[in-house]
Amino acid sequence: MQGPGVHRTKVGAFQVTALYDGTWSLPIDGTFVRNASGGAVNRALANAFLPPRVLPISFTALLVNTGTKLVLIDTGTAGQVADTAGVMLDNLKIAGVTPDQIDTILISHFHPDHIDGLKTKDGAKVFAKAEIVVPEPEWAFWMNDAKMAGQPKPVQRYFLNAKRIFGDIADEVRRFKPGAEVVPGITSIPAYGHTPGHTAFAIHSGNQSMLAMSDTVRKPYLFARHPDWQPIFDMDGSLAVKTRRRMLDRAAADRMLVEAYHFPFPASGHMVRRGTGYELVPVEWKPL
Amino acid sequence: MQGPGVHRTKVGAFQVTALYDGTWSLPIDGTFVRNASGGAVNRALANAFLPPRVLPISFTALLVNTGTKLVLIDTGTAGQVADTAGVMLDNLKIAGVTPDQIDTILISHFHPDHIDGLKTKDGAKVFAKAEIVVPEPEWAFWMNDAKMAGQPKPVQRYFLNAKRIFGDIADEVRRFKPGAEVVPGITSIPAYGHTPGHTAFAIHSGNQSMLAMSDTVRKPYLFARHPDWQPIFDMDGSLAVKTRRRMLDRAAADRMLVEAYHFPFPASGHMVRRGTGYELVPVEWKPL
Repeated sequence: MQGPGVHRTKVGAFQVTALYDGTWSLPIDGTFVRNASGGAVNRALANAFLPPRVLPISFTALLVNTGTKLVLIDTGTAGQVADTAGVMLDNLKIAGVTPDQIDTILISHFHPDHIDGLKTKDGAKVFAKAEIVVPEPEWAFWMNDAKMAGQPKPVQRYFLNAKRIFGDIADEVRRFKPGAEVVPGITSIPAYGHTPGHTAFAIHSGNQSMLAMSDTVRKPYLFARHPDWQPIFDMDGSLAVKTRRRMLDRAAADRMLVEAYHFPFPASGHMVRRGTGYELVPVEWKPL
Repeated sequence: MQGPGVHRTKVGAFQVTALYDGTWSLPIDGTFVRNASGGAVNRALANAFLPPRVLPISFTALLVNTGTKLVLIDTGTAGQVADTAGVMLDNLKIAGVTPDQIDTILISHFHPDHIDGLKTKDGAKVFAKAEIVVPEPEWAFWMNDAKMAGQPKPVQRYFLNAKRIFGDIADEVRRFKPGAEVVPGITSIPAYGHTPGHTAFAIHSGNQSMLAMSDTVRKPYLFARHPDWQPIFDMDGSLAVKTRRRMLDRAAADRMLVEAYHFPFPASGHMVRRGTGYELVPVEWKPL
């Protein structure tokens, strides 16, 4: 077993805990990035000392303790995406928190690896008392049967999965317009392209902040180094590139502390400009 | 509290576990690097998104499970170096190992942060059954009262501390000539300069290996980026530079998995050449 994946940072008076959920080693081929060759992708992996043709898709949820609320941003996979992922609840326990204590769950978008943790495989709710807060345009897209027709098969499965997760708890879900403050101290940021309503979050306390970029940038050694690359996971590839460039520009220019769901655990650091792209300077593990 | 610091890697058939001990935030001034200005050091810290005039000296011990032996490389500080360090034994417990189970302890050199974990503050042995294995030239230097005379005060304290740790257990200590295989699968490498007998270790299993560089390279954003910088901790600054350059050259050219005691936890990755120096590409946290 890998060691526990629990890493804490202070953002002003807030405590932010990164909770590792595991890693899905996804075989990829020359079609994975629409506008880059398999060879170019493999070279980028080699520069990160990773083997070719496999993408290590790690998952890290964020727990924000605002002092009055325990807020979870995205939920992990609950073992429903890959056999090698689903340990987020174990790490939550190591962090000293039970699922019942979570007050609010913020969802960035409706891809299964971000929402599956809301329910067990058997359909039971995992976070009994949490309010679930989702981007309105995600809800409008994925919960609308009419939008499903004509989509590719894998995307149709995402529709069905969203219905499985949210269908019977629709009245417990609060929808927000991206751009709004969703919890005191946490503001949503429209980051469309990856999915129609994909949303990032800015966590503010005192004069400190953290930008949770969600899936705007996935693996830094691929998509921060090459912001123009369009992975097949980005539904609107060119819009996703615009969003990614805008967010990376801002993060680098303002030297912001950033976090992203698929960055290598503990999934946070700072972005610096380098050549035609950016690179991640990971946070250093240290006492609080 | 920071999360548990336990990170596992496979090296062939061996399991290597990085055990975080904590971080000492050391105030530094313009004298910290003998041949670089305080301003240059602060700029290097800023490039790593760290505040000026403070060096985060983290400590990470390595536990190697060879299948037949549990080998610990260096010991952590046991709370005797800084209030914010001394959690290595807690992390060892989380890794499922008790101090009594350690068979062999390899020591890189006799600075307090590498040996203090052998004893409690009260002088009791921490690892009851472990053989302690040390570089002969370290023993010859630090255990010789005649060498102490004329040394600066802080170095004299290191002599007294070495005597405190090893004085009453001298007959339990095995000394080796750097260059020798010290445990099946672990070879020592002379890496003199930081101290007179400072030693690195190469861990080999099957066709895989890990180079444990000890203090040959301390913080990568200072001393890999600027291999010629001579911190005051390096007793023979110019010899330490030669050793550091030789080891970084080899690590980068051979794309070796490396580890270093003061690298940011989990303290391992690969070195790549960049400009006139090197930089660390940290390992990605993933399931085994």
